[in-house]
Amino acid sequence: MLLTTLYIIAITAEGMTGALAAGKHKMDLFGVMFIALVTAIGGGSIRDILLEHYPLTWVAHPYYVVLICVAALLTTKMPRVVARSEMVFLTLDAIGLVTFSILGAQVAIDKEYGFIIAVSAAVITGVFGGILRDILCMRIPLVFQKEIYAGIALLAGAIYYILIEYAHLDITLVTLITLVIGVSMRLLAIFYKLSLPVFDYEDEKKG
Amino acid sequence: MLLTTLYIIAITAEGMTGALAAGKHKMDLFGVMFIALVTAIGGGSIRDILLEHYPLTWVAHPYYVVLICVAALLTTKMPRVVARSEMVFLTLDAIGLVTFSILGAQVAIDKEYGFIIAVSAAVITGVFGGILRDILCMRIPLVFQKEIYAGIALLAGAIYYILIEYAHLDITLVTLITLVIGVSMRLLAIFYKLSLPVFDYEDEKKG
Amino acid sequence: MLLTTLYIIAITAEGMTGALAAGKHKMDLFGVMFIALVTAIGGGSIRDILLEHYPLTWVAHPYYVVLICVAALLTTKMPRVVARSEMVFLTLDAIGLVTFSILGAQVAIDKEYGFIIAVSAAVITGVFGGILRDILCMRIPLVFQKEIYAGIALLAGAIYYILIEYAHLDITLVTLITLVIGVSMRLLAIFYKLSLPVFDYEDEKKG
Repeated sequence: MLLTTLYIIAITAEGMTGALAAGKHKMDLFGVMFIALVTAIGGGSIRDILLEHYPLTWVAHPYYVVLICVAALLTTKMPRVVARSEMVFLTLDAIGLVTFSILGAQVAIDKEYGFIIAVSAAVITGVFGGILRDILCMRIPLVFQKEIYAGIALLAGAIYYILIEYAHLDITLVTLITLVIGVSMRLLAIFYKLSLPVFDYEDEKKG
Repeated sequence: MLLTTLYIIAITAEGMTGALAAGKHKMDLFGVMFIALVTAIGGGSIRDILLEHYPLTWVAHPYYVVLICVAALLTTKMPRVVARSEMVFLTLDAIGLVTFSILGAQVAIDKEYGFIIAVSAAVITGVFGGILRDILCMRIPLVFQKEIYAGIALLAGAIYYILIEYAHLDITLVTLITLVIGVSMRLLAIFYKLSLPVFDYEDEKKG
Repeated sequence: MLLTTLYIIAITAEGMTGALAAGKHKMDLFGVMFIALVTAIGGGSIRDILLEHYPLTWVAHPYYVVLICVAALLTTKMPRVVARSEMVFLTLDAIGLVTFSILGAQVAIDKEYGFIIAVSAAVITGVFGGILRDILCMRIPLVFQKEIYAGIALLAGAIYYILIEYAHLDITLVTLITLVIGVSMRLLAIFYKLSLPVFDYEDEKKG
């Protein structure tokens, strides 16, 4: 199944970004694996808890936990390889972000919630793993200050919801359309260094 | 309904304090809205998850999410107006705190829990939004170091629980009594800069 | 019952470590009690939420909340006594860690999950309280950088699960065996300053 394959790519890639972030803070092997797990499955877990969607994905499929730990360990063995493959990595991360958003929207649809909750679930699934990773590494979450990461999650969730609920297209087709649009937008955003306007209350006060 | 009106005032005011805090950290629009949402509905969400009280309020009423996002956006457009209206804002925040505490105690009563859980639910609802806001902005939660914010939540929860469960008064009357006592105490605490004793292990060690 | 006695020792000891950590950050009495509670019952609460194991222990037994608050208050009155009794304290903390791990594994067994989830539940119960404490005190969680704290939780969870599910031994006997092995390993790890290898991506890049 397409979504399962994409999900496995997504958690592996996100787990590796978590392991890299942990490595920058001189954490031990447990810390590296823990942060890899939180980054990869934290967003989906928070979404499932908020929407009462039990059992959580990794509880139902514990081998995902093992997969992410292995990916984290491999990252610690070859950080230079991972760091050098920046473009490959950013693309996998973009696929991961859009996949998480699609899965978030789908959970909301399964629970018969409307557009706002579907889009919220997409954003929560897409960005919360990275937010938890950054909190555990004691830094202001990147997602609040960077290119339109959350915006892509919102857009992907909205496209997916509208095409499924109003256009009644086939789920595989909708997944592919959302993926192509979302990943392209994400890579364009990185390439052109797009970002949302920054709200800076301090400066405005001085002005 | 009185409580619904108070709740809307509460989440709007708390969302605006969240947006102001986010603005001090040069966050983008997504960050501002995210922190506004966490501040406004984070405490209630954590209470509902801990007490298994589903669906969460904002999941059942998604328009609250939109309301808070709009309030956050407006705050970014007029931070000086918000900052200048300090007294108005502190009063709204006090109403918000007591309203959250009342709603927390009521959820515990609905689930047939006793006094300790009712008071705990009041405190969790009242202070957790602010704690999450401060963690996301990378600062030691203000609520641990400031005037008796949590104490007011505890007091409001206790008054509400006792008047409902033992005095069997009408819910609207109890809400008004709790609100008047709680808000007055909060404003007096601010005015007289009351605070709880601070426990400082380091100093005591030196002494 | 053995496990209940151990659990009460565990939450008291963990509450006291939370109160000590809070005291180092000049928090008020509420902050001290809040961090004591999060340290003592945060790990178990997160495990129960992730595994949908309701009601949470402290919601079903609210007097545990009172007990932890009292332990935290006593700690603020005699920090020097607590700080001087380092060996007593480390032993109680080791008992607490292993007890939490056993209880985590048992919850997974009750919910009929397998080995991976049982071990995950042991680690989550054992270490998450300390992680939350450190996040609230704004420091990189000690558990990611210190002696094999999480490793002991993993080991204790694994021993307990295997002896219960495969050896079918009596639950009290298994608890005692796990406790003796886990606590000894923990104290040896402290004594010999064992730690997991640290993964440091930055250094490797320079090298």
